[in-house]
Amino acid sequence: MAPRAPMANWLNDTNDVTAVFLAAGQIPNLINLAGGLPAPDAWPVTEISELAGDVVRDYPAETLTYSPVPGLPKLRDVLAERYSTPTLPLTRDNVMITTGGAQALDLIGKVLLEPGQKIAAQSPAYLGALDAWRPRTPVYAPMQLEDPACDITAAMSDAQFAYTVPNFSNPSGRLVLVEQRKALLAAAQETGAWLVEDDPYGKLYYDGNPLPTMLEMSATGKAYDGPVIYLGTVSKELAPGLRVGWIIAAPEMISALTVAKQGSDMFSSGLCQMIAARAYSEGLADRILPANLDLYRRRRDALCAAMDEHLSEFLTWEKPSGGMFVWARVKNPAISTDALMQVGLEHGVCISPSSVFDPEGLDQSGIRLNFTLNEPEKLTEGVRRLAKALSEMR
Amino acid sequence: MAPRAPMANWLNDTNDVTAVFLAAGQIPNLINLAGGLPAPDAWPVTEISELAGDVVRDYPAETLTYSPVPGLPKLRDVLAERYSTPTLPLTRDNVMITTGGAQALDLIGKVLLEPGQKIAAQSPAYLGALDAWRPRTPVYAPMQLEDPACDITAAMSDAQFAYTVPNFSNPSGRLVLVEQRKALLAAAQETGAWLVEDDPYGKLYYDGNPLPTMLEMSATGKAYDGPVIYLGTVSKELAPGLRVGWIIAAPEMISALTVAKQGSDMFSSGLCQMIAARAYSEGLADRILPANLDLYRRRRDALCAAMDEHLSEFLTWEKPSGGMFVWARVKNPAISTDALMQVGLEHGVCISPSSVFDPEGLDQSGIRLNFTLNEPEKLTEGVRRLAKALSEMR
Repeated sequence: MAPRAPMANWLNDTNDVTAVFLAAGQIPNLINLAGGLPAPDAWPVTEISELAGDVVRDYPAETLTYSPVPGLPKLRDVLAERYSTPTLPLTRDNVMITTGGAQALDLIGKVLLEPGQKIAAQSPAYLGALDAWRPRTPVYAPMQLEDPACDITAAMSDAQFAYTVPNFSNPSGRLVLVEQRKALLAAAQETGAWLVEDDPYGKLYYDGNPLPTMLEMSATGKAYDGPVIYLGTVSKELAPGLRVGWIIAAPEMISALTVAKQGSDMFSSGLCQMIAARAYSEGLADRILPANLDLYRRRRDALCAAMDEHLSEFLTWEKPSGGMFVWARVKNPAISTDALMQVGLEHGVCISPSSVFDPEGLDQSGIRLNFTLNEPEKLTEGVRRLAKALSEMR
Repeated sequence: MAPRAPMANWLNDTNDVTAVFLAAGQIPNLINLAGGLPAPDAWPVTEISELAGDVVRDYPAETLTYSPVPGLPKLRDVLAERYSTPTLPLTRDNVMITTGGAQALDLIGKVLLEPGQKIAAQSPAYLGALDAWRPRTPVYAPMQLEDPACDITAAMSDAQFAYTVPNFSNPSGRLVLVEQRKALLAAAQETGAWLVEDDPYGKLYYDGNPLPTMLEMSATGKAYDGPVIYLGTVSKELAPGLRVGWIIAAPEMISALTVAKQGSDMFSSGLCQMIAARAYSEGLADRILPANLDLYRRRRDALCAAMDEHLSEFLTWEKPSGGMFVWARVKNPAISTDALMQVGLEHGVCISPSSVFDPEGLDQSGIRLNFTLNEPEKLTEGVRRLAKALSEMR
């Protein structure tokens, strides 16, 4: 009897943070500041329940059977219209539907990465993106876009693509400024690298007006054929449980991604796609947005006020103007934030350590705190617990 | 301005059959015998519509938010119970949920295949599986299981896994006999290769009683830890548009697949998972099965009767005892079935040529005909058109 065939090597490179988070879920009265979850109060439960029943009854052919690999024509059309501007005329051929925003990252890896090729990634980088690309074993050139010394063109040279979250980046909560967006587009032209604009938080501006997307900034007035691969999702605008995301890009890229999707899950749920199509075409997503922005703004303010009161001795941070996260650095370089996560758990609060957002897994100087999931009182109590943990580690 | 970074090499190896099929969809009055679609008459539209509305209203936390990577505990438990026998005691740890059966194939590739490694595959092989593994650039050892000269152990030596569809294989419609199933299990023990048992058609027996699955045959009475990776789906039992499939395997394999799923689409739609959980736990799937078996049996009989009348001059085939397909070989070796597909389209009938089920794309001697989608009259007319096409190619 022979030993079983071994697993692929990339599986040895994963971290165990998910296991830690899952185990944390078992701790009674834990305050979870680690995840990136929208508030349950924000879901339009009654409306989605009615839509779900209606679309199966009214559109059984679209919702229940096999449907086209790149998505239902109706949803692709709704999204093409939603993102079109006078200078950015989009059609169905620029749009493909994915199983949540997460799948878009996997498909981009399949289409653009030979094993060992290079990605220029905004640093720190979204954990889910690192997970998605790990099986294709890429190398990373980090880009600290806010650092004036960051040489974007050098980072993007010989890279297959650059990966950015320009609006309230996960984990840093940072807004990539218009000048930096321009520099990314110029570097894409100069180097030939594609430019992935991952935008799950693009509607979540709490102060000021939304900046133009790099997709819009690279529009020419003609059918879109630029370097930007734009990613959107219903997860923050309606409900993540639907698993509906989308990619907007040049038709050549949409065609290649469609081949990759065919071999990944063939197509996304027609039922969920049709709910999304109706929610956008009938205005549900836009109708619920103002109340959700108010809810999240109050929670951000509550978290930051509690941090000002309890954590300024230990941490530095900037109040984000949108999104779901505050990113903070420890002042005392002797404190490892991997250790802080463990000590925090003993005090009943869970945070995300910076190591999981570093492709090398080395950075132990930062933490990410989520403010959308919990009510203000819980956020304040979570911050108090974190302050206790930090004071013990002095 | 630099040329755009190139796409990954594997994209050059895809065939254009999907494009041909899509274009065929535009031909008026075309009779489509090419796909693998269940009959629309078979969907329980009213029941799924009610379930869809109910589960969002009653379980918003499970259906609308992020849920566990390996699936909702409720659905994993329902499936563990459904597949358990006295000698095969399964728990949630043996079960993971996938986005349709198709995703299971992609995840298996990610977990088991380094670039260039070997798969022993039942021949001819399911097109969707070849699509799923193409980005990991495997090599194939074909297994013609029904051929007494087939050396299964040799094919599986140094292979990472064997891939089989034992019940009414796609495309051949063949049933893998119990002796052949035993031989596959013995070879898995001897070589260490994993054994993928893809079973979308396992309920679709029209004559006789279902054979034991290799999962059952490798049970020991203890917690399952064998070499079989069993794949199931709601696509043929309820509705493919839900995109709910599952994997049953050793916990070690489920854990590795969960890491791969996290980087693929993070989790499958909670809404669709909860519909499936309710449809199985409340008996909906079992309730609709007898009528669907009657429907499909009549259609198989109609197709085979028409073939007897019009095609025996040109083709040889065996009447399948289940599933969705009849597999036929042309008698005249001068006729290429790639050409037959094109000539058929001119006559208003679409068939699948054998080349798309061959990892090398070479076999041009066979065709696959689907009998579940169309009514008997249409099946008969489709066969008449195919006979005309064949008579022109003499």
